[in-house]
Amino acid sequence: MCWLVYIVVLTDLTHWYCSSKCCCCLCTVRCQKFLISCVGEDWIFLILLGLFMALLSWLVDFGIGICLQSQKWMYVNLESNVFLQYLAWVTYPVVLITFSAGFTQLLAPQAVGSGIPEIKTILRGVVLKECLTFKTFVAKVIGLTSALGSGMPLGKESPFVHIASLGAALLCKFMSLFGGIYENESRNIELLSVACAVGVSCVFAAPIGGLLFSIEAMSTFFTVRNYWRGFFAATVTAFMYRVLAVWNRDEVTITALLPTNFRQDFPFDLQELPAFAVLGIASGLGGALFVCLNRQIVQLIRNQKTIKKFLMKKRLLYPALVTLLVSTLTFPPGFGQFMAAKLTQMESLETLLDNQTWSKQGIPEEFDSNSHSQAWKHPQVNVFVTLTLFVVMKFWMSALAMTMPVPCGAFMPVFVIGAAFGRLVGESMAAWFPDGVHSDGTIYPIEPGVYAAVGAAALSGAVTHTVSTAVVVFELTGQISHILPVMIAVILANAVAQSLQPSLYDSLIMIKKLPYLPELGWGHHEYYNICVEDIMIRDVMYITLNCCYRDLHDVLLTGHLKTLALLESSESMILLGSIERAQIQALLSLQLGRPRRLKYLRDRATAEKRLSVVSHPSSEDGSTMVNQEVHFQVNKVKVQIHLYKMWCLPSVLKPGSVKEEWEENQLDEQVNFDNCMIDPAPIQLVESTSLHKTHTIFSLLGLDHAYVTSIGRLIGVVSLKELQKAIEGSVAVKGVNVRPPLASFRDSGTSGTIMNNENKARDLHKLWNRRKLMSLPKEHRASDSDEKSK
Amino acid sequence: MCWLVYIVVLTDLTHWYCSSKCCCCLCTVRCQKFLISCVGEDWIFLILLGLFMALLSWLVDFGIGICLQSQKWMYVNLESNVFLQYLAWVTYPVVLITFSAGFTQLLAPQAVGSGIPEIKTILRGVVLKECLTFKTFVAKVIGLTSALGSGMPLGKESPFVHIASLGAALLCKFMSLFGGIYENESRNIELLSVACAVGVSCVFAAPIGGLLFSIEAMSTFFTVRNYWRGFFAATVTAFMYRVLAVWNRDEVTITALLPTNFRQDFPFDLQELPAFAVLGIASGLGGALFVCLNRQIVQLIRNQKTIKKFLMKKRLLYPALVTLLVSTLTFPPGFGQFMAAKLTQMESLETLLDNQTWSKQGIPEEFDSNSHSQAWKHPQVNVFVTLTLFVVMKFWMSALAMTMPVPCGAFMPVFVIGAAFGRLVGESMAAWFPDGVHSDGTIYPIEPGVYAAVGAAALSGAVTHTVSTAVVVFELTGQISHILPVMIAVILANAVAQSLQPSLYDSLIMIKKLPYLPELGWGHHEYYNICVEDIMIRDVMYITLNCCYRDLHDVLLTGHLKTLALLESSESMILLGSIERAQIQALLSLQLGRPRRLKYLRDRATAEKRLSVVSHPSSEDGSTMVNQEVHFQVNKVKVQIHLYKMWCLPSVLKPGSVKEEWEENQLDEQVNFDNCMIDPAPIQLVESTSLHKTHTIFSLLGLDHAYVTSIGRLIGVVSLKELQKAIEGSVAVKGVNVRPPLASFRDSGTSGTIMNNENKARDLHKLWNRRKLMSLPKEHRASDSDEKSK
Repeated sequence: MCWLVYIVVLTDLTHWYCSSKCCCCLCTVRCQKFLISCVGEDWIFLILLGLFMALLSWLVDFGIGICLQSQKWMYVNLESNVFLQYLAWVTYPVVLITFSAGFTQLLAPQAVGSGIPEIKTILRGVVLKECLTFKTFVAKVIGLTSALGSGMPLGKESPFVHIASLGAALLCKFMSLFGGIYENESRNIELLSVACAVGVSCVFAAPIGGLLFSIEAMSTFFTVRNYWRGFFAATVTAFMYRVLAVWNRDEVTITALLPTNFRQDFPFDLQELPAFAVLGIASGLGGALFVCLNRQIVQLIRNQKTIKKFLMKKRLLYPALVTLLVSTLTFPPGFGQFMAAKLTQMESLETLLDNQTWSKQGIPEEFDSNSHSQAWKHPQVNVFVTLTLFVVMKFWMSALAMTMPVPCGAFMPVFVIGAAFGRLVGESMAAWFPDGVHSDGTIYPIEPGVYAAVGAAALSGAVTHTVSTAVVVFELTGQISHILPVMIAVILANAVAQSLQPSLYDSLIMIKKLPYLPELGWGHHEYYNICVEDIMIRDVMYITLNCCYRDLHDVLLTGHLKTLALLESSESMILLGSIERAQIQALLSLQLGRPRRLKYLRDRATAEKRLSVVSHPSSEDGSTMVNQEVHFQVNKVKVQIHLYKMWCLPSVLKPGSVKEEWEENQLDEQVNFDNCMIDPAPIQLVESTSLHKTHTIFSLLGLDHAYVTSIGRLIGVVSLKELQKAIEGSVAVKGVNVRPPLASFRDSGTSGTIMNNENKARDLHKLWNRRKLMSLPKEHRASDSDEKSK
Repeated sequence: MCWLVYIVVLTDLTHWYCSSKCCCCLCTVRCQKFLISCVGEDWIFLILLGLFMALLSWLVDFGIGICLQSQKWMYVNLESNVFLQYLAWVTYPVVLITFSAGFTQLLAPQAVGSGIPEIKTILRGVVLKECLTFKTFVAKVIGLTSALGSGMPLGKESPFVHIASLGAALLCKFMSLFGGIYENESRNIELLSVACAVGVSCVFAAPIGGLLFSIEAMSTFFTVRNYWRGFFAATVTAFMYRVLAVWNRDEVTITALLPTNFRQDFPFDLQELPAFAVLGIASGLGGALFVCLNRQIVQLIRNQKTIKKFLMKKRLLYPALVTLLVSTLTFPPGFGQFMAAKLTQMESLETLLDNQTWSKQGIPEEFDSNSHSQAWKHPQVNVFVTLTLFVVMKFWMSALAMTMPVPCGAFMPVFVIGAAFGRLVGESMAAWFPDGVHSDGTIYPIEPGVYAAVGAAALSGAVTHTVSTAVVVFELTGQISHILPVMIAVILANAVAQSLQPSLYDSLIMIKKLPYLPELGWGHHEYYNICVEDIMIRDVMYITLNCCYRDLHDVLLTGHLKTLALLESSESMILLGSIERAQIQALLSLQLGRPRRLKYLRDRATAEKRLSVVSHPSSEDGSTMVNQEVHFQVNKVKVQIHLYKMWCLPSVLKPGSVKEEWEENQLDEQVNFDNCMIDPAPIQLVESTSLHKTHTIFSLLGLDHAYVTSIGRLIGVVSLKELQKAIEGSVAVKGVNVRPPLASFRDSGTSGTIMNNENKARDLHKLWNRRKLMSLPKEHRASDSDEKSK
């Protein structure tokens, strides 16, 4: 306490010293900065974010729990009448999903879906402002709670990444009220990437896995500085999330979310590794299939014009129909009895990770009567059939449910399917080797629960193209002794899935047509051989330093890039900087805007008035003045009305009128760039920059476009679109000439930046020629004048 | 098998198709490329590297084990005579350490020390070629084995990072014999960073922790592409390393390296968290103290001239003396009995992580008689004293031992000290709360082993400034249920240590005076306010496109940067590219070199001969010709001797001689850059680039220097040195004007790239003025000619 008081006194003193010394405005800034640096704003921010998200996650869980419990309650209480039971079982989710879809649609349509694709795009440097508003936040939280409360196979993870990013963005805005560094945009993006880690962490209470997953799923490059922050915030979140459970008396102390109890002294036998490898490869195939299936469903709906038309009219019908279908099929007394449909996702996961063997040589073992595992046991069919049905049905159901326009993710369903598939393999192994595979006397029976954990990590890793699902599994189960089988399966699953399909998030980005940059695959040497000059657009829109407003006007009507190049002159083509389109619009409206028009007209009127006064000097002063005044007043109103029209409909003006003439004159004036924001350092590439390096620079710096210069002269521009097309290898890009991969062996054998001999000679000769060209006019002129002087 | 045959046949067919189709040279390249892409060279490389390093690590372990066993054997067999026992105990390590120091010194002095600082510097983009040679590899492996075999408190981890990097570099060279992508330097650096992960992974069998540790300790920015590779290679290594243990019958199956058996259902109580936090903070202080102590010892030895002089003469004396001191103090029948000196590092660690409580209310409990834990039990003193002595003695011993010129690391000793410190805290807690701290009936006794694990992670995290030591601990012990206490302690330890001292590796970099870039701390806003123009050097050494060889000569004699700027002309100052110093030297020696001299002299001689023949046309043809021939032959020999002298001592030449004249003429010729490697895209910054952004760009792209341009005109250069000084905040840098932090509020409130209003206006006016200046001569000339024409 005494230290605290001391610090407060010290702060006050310094504060007083500050305020007394500096002048008013500067003082405020300084004091704010001082205060902020006193409390260490980064820490505060991260702790606040962590606590807030943990609380939110817990509240959402609570809401979902209540929804699911009430559905179960209805289902149990109506056991006397199967029809009523079915009605309750089906209506409840349909209502919830329809509410979720409707609410989201009304409040913020951008809250629909996973959210990770949007955040990934934002982290790439693309501004999607509407994705980070308070409305979206509310829509996402409430929509997610009701969507998950319906019990459909949907996930909480990816929406929570979006929610955490929203939380971080809103907190940033809030903190920037106190001034300081929060206004810096690049910093906000850094904090966003921390938020992603927080989002994952507060779903699984997995700080390390959360951070790593967020790195892998979101970024191409990662700052180690941020890694630190992410660790800190994710730990705070996970801690708080678990402490809330303790406070709520759900747990005695902080443990893992789904603690398992696998054998630790002999986790697995070396001879089991092939089975794990097969599980990994199969999961990889399954992951690719899932991504493909999801995309096919979306495209089917989009391309079928009748379906699309119908669904566009009745937007809420599609989710309701899907929910009806899924919940009918999972109705427990019906088909659902063969796939443990009674259990919620978390309950199924818990049972799947059970360390008991469910079946020995085909005969089901006895379960604890009070355990959820009983749901998997069916009097007629054996466990293998139940598990297979579960895997197959949930697979397409999840892929279908993902396409509903509600806030939802796919991680959790995929994780559960993977666990079920792993369990299936594990149970088969246990049935095949009832005494384990170990040869040296001691019997170590096979634990199917381990296979379930491995399968969960492998399938979710394959769908999301991440390896860190392995870490998530360790943190979720609280056991790490199976690290090697999990790692091997996850790596194999990834290798298979990555070679077949893009990740789920990239696939969603493609479906949503967001701007994105595909990853460079492994071992594609052609990226070192394609150069920027092969893919750049050569006719760049530009403005020059000495251009007139008319040029600005013309340039605004063409092109699609957000910024325009500012050149010294169209002869020298030297790139000075870039200007945003909005800035140019502002310049134009300033020049042609109402205040200047009014001023001109007022000036003109005054001049006319003076002229008239001057031309009628003999008339009686008093009355004429009054008349003039009235006339002028009337005139002014008219002018204003006219101006108003002109402002709204500048093209309606008849040619030859005074105002048109004025406008034409204004457009011919030279532009004054004094009050215009110019970016003096647009990123520049040279012609010989390789595609690989370009990709690196674009992803590192989150670029939208880059100018290609040669000795300071602008010769082209490369935007994300060209790069994307070049990487995807489409040869016939409109207006862009892409060489087929490996067509040129230019750079082979030399490092990226240094050109090889032929190129060098060629380029140097270019330089020389340019130099000659550039010096020629001067010499010419000089000789001209010489001749003339002679 | 059938698939394999199919693939082979297919490959052969395609191969044949390839070879038959293309011409000879291109064919070879293509076939190589094809072969490489067939086998997927990245995978092959990573697997080979992983297997090789695992095998090497296992062999080194084996060697160390034999050394330690033989010391123990000697010690046990001489129990009859204490003096002989002491002699054996002391001589053995002294001999081993002296051998290690001598061997390393002779073969490759750069193999001395940790190796992580060097690798970190290489990853930053600085070329330290001598660090990655085969000699260094041999010296490091053998030196490390004998140094660790001595039983001194040294670590294996960081040298293994160096060894893995060496392995990767050598493997790269080997693979590049088969052609392909291995010649690309930036790629080699990517593979180096993977090698670091492999290095850590094969010491602790911790793939995830190894990868994360290597990221945190080595890089500032990380490519997610690489992360994938690192995971793969690290898993292969860890797997192989553990499989070797199984094959060697050390283990039944693959388990963690040091499996623990902590309680899982109730890992810890919430009320224990303050104790963990205190442990973390204390470890942070301890970590900073360790780094400081290590540096102080080095600086003491360096600054004391007498000591330095003495040690420079007898290089092997210092390690011998240190070893003598340390081993005397740890002699088990002597002082060593109070600090469990009998145990090796791994044995101590194993005992410290024991899940039994050693003391209950001050009275030591009974240990298993066959367990190593007995070493901690002393009949006279209690466990607390033993642990405290162990911590204090090992602390300074490790810091001292680190300064010996042998290949060694500090991670393992620090890890053990941390574990001992944690155990001390844990035992105290257990003594304080004998029935645990849980209030709800059930008794959960406190497990001091958990505190040991937390302490180990916290102290090693504090020394190395990494958070991922937490993951290393999980993987090492095979238990993750204590994730939250470990994370909290590690984060607190890091926060404390980072605010007090640089990390051990940065400290070593500073001691070794390697070029490095300090990290930007948290929440330092001034980095956004300092601009490049405040720190850049304004008088840049440059050459122009139309310069003569004399300029090259002059420029070579001055400046320190490795590359020189190539400008269009000294008037326009337009930056065209940069040329390496070596290239310029090559150009000069080509121009003034022997072949050209000889050619000139031969031409001259021929000309003279012709002249003489022409001048004596009347003499008898036969004899004169013969005479001339002889004369010429003699002359030629003389000329060659003279040329040889001139070549060796070009400055000895007397002025006015023929050759001097020739040289002067040659120097005045214009340079022909045709055969010169020019980097056409040197990185350019603008004046207003903030220090923060500059740091980011430098660390992202691993730059050594960057040119500062304004509208294509070169105005300055920033090298690593200036940046380093600016970040460290030294205001009075020689020749560089650094503004004190927060002196300027220029950029406050706007984003990094867009200038604020004042600057913008200022810069625009600059642009205008420049434009005027540039256009002025033309106009002037034009008006001149106008006048003249008039």
